[in-house]
Amino acid sequence: MTSKNPTAAILTIGDEILSGRTRDANMYHLAGELTRAGIDLKEARVVSDDRAAIVEAVRALSAKYTHVFTSGGIGPTHDDITADCIAEAFGRTIDVRDDAKALLSAHYEGRGVEFNDARMRMARIPEGAVLIENPVSIAPGFSVENVHVMAGVPNIFSAMVAGLLPTLTGGKPLLSQTYRINRPESAVAQPLGTLAEKYPALSMGSYPFVQNGAYGTNIVIRGQDGALVEAAMMELAKLFPADEQG
Amino acid sequence: MTSKNPTAAILTIGDEILSGRTRDANMYHLAGELTRAGIDLKEARVVSDDRAAIVEAVRALSAKYTHVFTSGGIGPTHDDITADCIAEAFGRTIDVRDDAKALLSAHYEGRGVEFNDARMRMARIPEGAVLIENPVSIAPGFSVENVHVMAGVPNIFSAMVAGLLPTLTGGKPLLSQTYRINRPESAVAQPLGTLAEKYPALSMGSYPFVQNGAYGTNIVIRGQDGALVEAAMMELAKLFPADEQG
Repeated sequence: MTSKNPTAAILTIGDEILSGRTRDANMYHLAGELTRAGIDLKEARVVSDDRAAIVEAVRALSAKYTHVFTSGGIGPTHDDITADCIAEAFGRTIDVRDDAKALLSAHYEGRGVEFNDARMRMARIPEGAVLIENPVSIAPGFSVENVHVMAGVPNIFSAMVAGLLPTLTGGKPLLSQTYRINRPESAVAQPLGTLAEKYPALSMGSYPFVQNGAYGTNIVIRGQDGALVEAAMMELAKLFPADEQG
Repeated sequence: MTSKNPTAAILTIGDEILSGRTRDANMYHLAGELTRAGIDLKEARVVSDDRAAIVEAVRALSAKYTHVFTSGGIGPTHDDITADCIAEAFGRTIDVRDDAKALLSAHYEGRGVEFNDARMRMARIPEGAVLIENPVSIAPGFSVENVHVMAGVPNIFSAMVAGLLPTLTGGKPLLSQTYRINRPESAVAQPLGTLAEKYPALSMGSYPFVQNGAYGTNIVIRGQDGALVEAAMMELAKLFPADEQG
């Protein structure tokens, strides 16, 4: 499918998904938000809390896509090394930044909580970064060049995404229509292939399923031109009429 | 954390996760299975149905890890290009293979279903590959060198993993214990960092949560030596006694 939309990758940092302890939530959330914003998510990676792995992935993805969104590793603990890795990836210094420190200091003072060294870690921001607001727990995310660094806790991640996305220039949102066919994917494959060749500007995906022991296939047609999606969907419906599917 | 276990990556192929339509299930399932088998999952990637992207990811991951597990793109439709990409990544030819064709032919004949060209695509296997059994829908997966290629439909993926994993040499399973602390992560960070320094052979992760408006942190200690995990866990419990947590 051809598209002139901005492209993106998401980089999830941390051991909890790779160990099988936690099921991904942030990639799933962001993928939906980016589609609505007209930004094409092209790749996702998950790496562990390993300095070399993070730096390498940040550099590779930053060079390849319009935007990179990272999730995780900016909290107060010893294994939160994302901010340092971002600084290293871009050859920048990193230190406690006054505005980030002021935000956190006011937050902890207001709650009568000690602003200790671990909490101060969260005010360490790479040189020249732009802060991303955290309305949930205050400790900010930040953007360095085209890399947007956010917390891994899902409700904080979502809140940061909600603040960040409107500041980025999106493209035309991707429209999609789904058609359910009560036949196995292997019976749908040939006509669908012919249809896909006829509409190179559209993406046609087939998603097989099993329901009550019977095979079926959902066809999803996506594209930026709504009339074209509609036309292809009409042809598909003619090939597999709903009333012949029993 | 130091470990001499085999390493692994998982590569998920297809647009359904990147478009936000589907939430990952296979990575989550495999991550748990690998942990139990003593194989360390180090990286996960998701790429779209794009030939260059798949070939590049397969080569990069295959060179870096003991095993690579792929999910998706081996069905009968036009966008199922994984088998061709694996062949290209390893400079091998690909063609319909007799044993795979015989499996599928018997399967379709037994159900009175036509063995059409689209279904025949699923018998195309790179030269020299070892087949992976598919007890659910018969069309086999395959291994080429250290890359294990499996279907994306979750119940088929799981069935293939169940057959494949016992044939691979695992390491010592990773043991883990979790301790719940009813205090925010920023209050736990400093003592946890000191503890982590004392036990370099263990991995200590902290996972903040919010429950009924109160912040808490789950600490997960992982390692191959159960006695060491236990010793570190006892120290942690002394630092944050359960009865002082209100």
